[in-house]
Amino acid sequence: MSEWTVYLSGEVHTDWRARIETAARRLDLPVSFSSPVTDHSASDDCGVAILGDESSPFWKDHKGAKVNAIRTRSLIDRADVVVVRFGDKYRQWNAAFDAGYAAARAKPVITLHDPALTHALKEVDAAAMAVAETPEQVAQLLAYVTRGELELSAAGA
Amino acid sequence: MSEWTVYLSGEVHTDWRARIETAARRLDLPVSFSSPVTDHSASDDCGVAILGDESSPFWKDHKGAKVNAIRTRSLIDRADVVVVRFGDKYRQWNAAFDAGYAAARAKPVITLHDPALTHALKEVDAAAMAVAETPEQVAQLLAYVTRGELELSAAGA
Amino acid sequence: MSEWTVYLSGEVHTDWRARIETAARRLDLPVSFSSPVTDHSASDDCGVAILGDESSPFWKDHKGAKVNAIRTRSLIDRADVVVVRFGDKYRQWNAAFDAGYAAARAKPVITLHDPALTHALKEVDAAAMAVAETPEQVAQLLAYVTRGELELSAAGA
Amino acid sequence: MSEWTVYLSGEVHTDWRARIETAARRLDLPVSFSSPVTDHSASDDCGVAILGDESSPFWKDHKGAKVNAIRTRSLIDRADVVVVRFGDKYRQWNAAFDAGYAAARAKPVITLHDPALTHALKEVDAAAMAVAETPEQVAQLLAYVTRGELELSAAGA
Amino acid sequence: MSEWTVYLSGEVHTDWRARIETAARRLDLPVSFSSPVTDHSASDDCGVAILGDESSPFWKDHKGAKVNAIRTRSLIDRADVVVVRFGDKYRQWNAAFDAGYAAARAKPVITLHDPALTHALKEVDAAAMAVAETPEQVAQLLAYVTRGELELSAAGA
Amino acid sequence: MSEWTVYLSGEVHTDWRARIETAARRLDLPVSFSSPVTDHSASDDCGVAILGDESSPFWKDHKGAKVNAIRTRSLIDRADVVVVRFGDKYRQWNAAFDAGYAAARAKPVITLHDPALTHALKEVDAAAMAVAETPEQVAQLLAYVTRGELELSAAGA
Amino acid sequence: MSEWTVYLSGEVHTDWRARIETAARRLDLPVSFSSPVTDHSASDDCGVAILGDESSPFWKDHKGAKVNAIRTRSLIDRADVVVVRFGDKYRQWNAAFDAGYAAARAKPVITLHDPALTHALKEVDAAAMAVAETPEQVAQLLAYVTRGELELSAAGA
Amino acid sequence: MSEWTVYLSGEVHTDWRARIETAARRLDLPVSFSSPVTDHSASDDCGVAILGDESSPFWKDHKGAKVNAIRTRSLIDRADVVVVRFGDKYRQWNAAFDAGYAAARAKPVITLHDPALTHALKEVDAAAMAVAETPEQVAQLLAYVTRGELELSAAGA
Repeated sequence: MSEWTVYLSGEVHTDWRARIETAARRLDLPVSFSSPVTDHSASDDCGVAILGDESSPFWKDHKGAKVNAIRTRSLIDRADVVVVRFGDKYRQWNAAFDAGYAAARAKPVITLHDPALTHALKEVDAAAMAVAETPEQVAQLLAYVTRGELELSAAGA
Repeated sequence: MSEWTVYLSGEVHTDWRARIETAARRLDLPVSFSSPVTDHSASDDCGVAILGDESSPFWKDHKGAKVNAIRTRSLIDRADVVVVRFGDKYRQWNAAFDAGYAAARAKPVITLHDPALTHALKEVDAAAMAVAETPEQVAQLLAYVTRGELELSAAGA
Repeated sequence: MSEWTVYLSGEVHTDWRARIETAARRLDLPVSFSSPVTDHSASDDCGVAILGDESSPFWKDHKGAKVNAIRTRSLIDRADVVVVRFGDKYRQWNAAFDAGYAAARAKPVITLHDPALTHALKEVDAAAMAVAETPEQVAQLLAYVTRGELELSAAGA
Repeated sequence: MSEWTVYLSGEVHTDWRARIETAARRLDLPVSFSSPVTDHSASDDCGVAILGDESSPFWKDHKGAKVNAIRTRSLIDRADVVVVRFGDKYRQWNAAFDAGYAAARAKPVITLHDPALTHALKEVDAAAMAVAETPEQVAQLLAYVTRGELELSAAGA
Repeated sequence: MSEWTVYLSGEVHTDWRARIETAARRLDLPVSFSSPVTDHSASDDCGVAILGDESSPFWKDHKGAKVNAIRTRSLIDRADVVVVRFGDKYRQWNAAFDAGYAAARAKPVITLHDPALTHALKEVDAAAMAVAETPEQVAQLLAYVTRGELELSAAGA
Repeated sequence: MSEWTVYLSGEVHTDWRARIETAARRLDLPVSFSSPVTDHSASDDCGVAILGDESSPFWKDHKGAKVNAIRTRSLIDRADVVVVRFGDKYRQWNAAFDAGYAAARAKPVITLHDPALTHALKEVDAAAMAVAETPEQVAQLLAYVTRGELELSAAGA
Repeated sequence: MSEWTVYLSGEVHTDWRARIETAARRLDLPVSFSSPVTDHSASDDCGVAILGDESSPFWKDHKGAKVNAIRTRSLIDRADVVVVRFGDKYRQWNAAFDAGYAAARAKPVITLHDPALTHALKEVDAAAMAVAETPEQVAQLLAYVTRGELELSAAGA
Repeated sequence: MSEWTVYLSGEVHTDWRARIETAARRLDLPVSFSSPVTDHSASDDCGVAILGDESSPFWKDHKGAKVNAIRTRSLIDRADVVVVRFGDKYRQWNAAFDAGYAAARAKPVITLHDPALTHALKEVDAAAMAVAETPEQVAQLLAYVTRGELELSAAGA
């Protein structure tokens, strides 16, 4: 079985990516992960830092968001599976945008969020192939999907 | 010039759709509009009302969201332009999802929101062809795009 | 709102198509229906009747199935929604094939079958946007999807 | 000549996959095989085992089927050739679904079944590039397709 | 049932197009036909007649063939069904090219030729959904495909 | 024969569009034409006039160019044929961009320019189906392509 | 620069493939070649030899042609460049079919044939990116395309 | 993180490609570069040098441009990012054509040009994800996009 590529979209303020990667390593999964730039200030500043300052906050954001999009769209296009994480803070419209983009590209989407967000996320979940509550469940899904094995305990918690 | 089809995605609690349609009518634009079901309770209940009740809120939402998606995806796929409205209430992840879906389908997206949301919406705006603040601006954009005329005063405010 | 086209795939031995069409007419839905050739012997014989006899049953079937496929693939490709009906008799692999074909073409699929078939149809239902049990539910779904109205009683039973 | 990837869809209760793989190994073919999860209970339970229990059998099946679909769709999308096996037991609508999905994705399909199923499978066979009766014939087809050699005896029986 | 569009590719020296159109009219089929320019000298000369003379026969042909291709590719792309006729004279590589082009665009192809050409045309026939020997059979196929009726005698001979 | 749609891209300072339309009307061609906004100042100002002023010339241009792109991309996507005109003044990178965009969308391109530009335009001409020097030649091409007639004198000069 | 894949379609009775491969080896090009099965009787018999005999020559050919198509379509789909060779014998409709198929897939096509065939092949040549007369010219084209060098003498004759 | 492929389109008379590659090497970026043939006379002469002389300059250019297009289209299609450079000399319609082609293929485009060209390039810039003024900025963009790091000083100037 060859390698799978998994893109991890969404929330940048908690350790969910590290927990998925740790669980995947523990299970020795044939998976490589990619993600947006998760350094918040780098992500905000990349446009003006590289291409020159802007006096208007709108264009500062615009420049940066487009530079980030070069990365994110390319990585989503290369991914076999896209995991989208929603936290309880921030509006995270970019995560929902990524989910829509991935769904239109026929990429299987796994959402990861607290049950408290179920109603607010119903349209996004409806487009997902699986709805997980913990990073470890995502790792178990990837274990099952890539190797066909239900290795529940090994993924830890 | 033939007819254009414009899909109006997003916020259902204000009159922005009516204002765009009124302005478009006043300008006699060759545009027909489509939208998701904007009756909130119908939209929430359609799944269980038609297909049978669910004890779990998750599956109630899931059933409804998929029924709504039959409509929204078809209408986005037929649209020439997709307008996505974000208000200051609610998380509206479905609006951002639609924007991502439309962008991946190479549909031109116009976002409509208050400047206060600029930073939170920067990734969505970066994928848009125009960022408007009022419904009347959207009508003016449609007048320009469909007829090539800058009819600013006629669109009203 | 413009017209919607709905393809009715599957079972040919019961009156489910007529019931959907009757309910849709009663609701005055902006929907036109298409379907495979439902005259069973015409469908079986079309290949050899038009193009010449075959001594081998395999090639008789093959010729006929391909002639039918000219119709069915074209109609699915033009459809906005594909309804796939499974009955409790026959193996109906062509219905499941149509569902897979439609799903890969990103057409929204509605399945229609008795709950007794749930486990056997789980992969097909998983790719569907709605799972109905009666033709009248399908008509109600179409009413909701095309007009955004929940008109439950009017669809009859 | 580079490697070919062959997806083996369908029946999980006989040894047809192993027989194709054995014959391919004996012929030293440049082919790697992929398949759905063939452990029947793992395949049935994966959804609830990983993502949490369901009281309704419908949603238990739904959850599992979607998790399985992450795997099967990805593997079909990566395959150069899709082999679909129909046995005489079970309805195997998922196999026919896979055939329709693969055909719509322009993947060459080889069906593998007993001649007794010819009439029931005529629409699926009509979309196939080859209709085989034994796993060894499939291996011979793969030998011919990948290396251009007719090595009939070597494939064994 | 809405209108079907059928493109008639290939041989220009016999009356096969007229015979199909006559039979279709007699059956009152919901079909409109399109075809390449069948005036042989217009087809050969269009490039140089409109865009200026060429001293080299190669470039004269090249100019004309590209002008013709504007028409033929557009019409094939709009067609629901492509009929490709091979006669026993001329090499008609353009007809085989059209068949390959149509097949790659997932258009159903019907070939029309004498059984004497079977072996030479085996690759083209293998990509076709039906192989007819007479124009009247093509009309009967279209009657069946568009209306689902086997009207054999009415098509004449 | 149904209607053809022709998009007229490029130079806005000469009367080439009017000459093509006049010649097409004289020939009574089944063609409707579309084009970018050709009022130069409207095209330059549309972004800031509708969406608000910008202090930086770059962002003024950017806003306007994106609004124009909503129109031009939609019209190219709907066109059957794209004509791209290059004059001897201005750099007209937008015309070449449109040609590349249309070519990638498999739209047949006709270029229209003076022979003096041949070397500079060789890559664009190489992607074109015809290279014309006068608007009347374009009309003659459209007459030939849409009706299959060589009506040279009638197109006038 | 990474490897290029070149598919060699058409004539099987002369040594043109070997001459291209020899010239490419002499130039040490980063190119790997693929081709249909060029053993004429294997190609004719593969269907019945593997899948069982046929009494009708039509179905014998049909079976074989479809098995060959598994190989040829897959290899064309993987190719970066498709070379199509036409000789002066045989009708080679399969070569023209491959050219049409490749063109519709946006694969660059190089045709290889004697100038005597120019008029008969004008539609195919019109879809080609280069028209060569000798295998050595094809190798020189590949040297230029893959390495950007004009190495004329080294390709030999 | 795997390798990224970047195509460098446009101007051939300055050292901008070398400067990007030097900066990328200094930053040890996981990027491989491709480009059109930048030897001007080879690029002009390749058609006639390989395929035979032409008396008309138009056809000499045509032959060469198509041979070059085999290379450029293939490389753009394989690229993850397309950089398009415009200088102040020459009309460089091929660069704008490449930008349009890449945009239609959904490849992220970075333009590189002097601010003096802003107005003339507004439509091309509007389709770009980033607009750079120096090759070093392009290298910094690639560093950020491929590794997520803002390494401004290391890219040099």
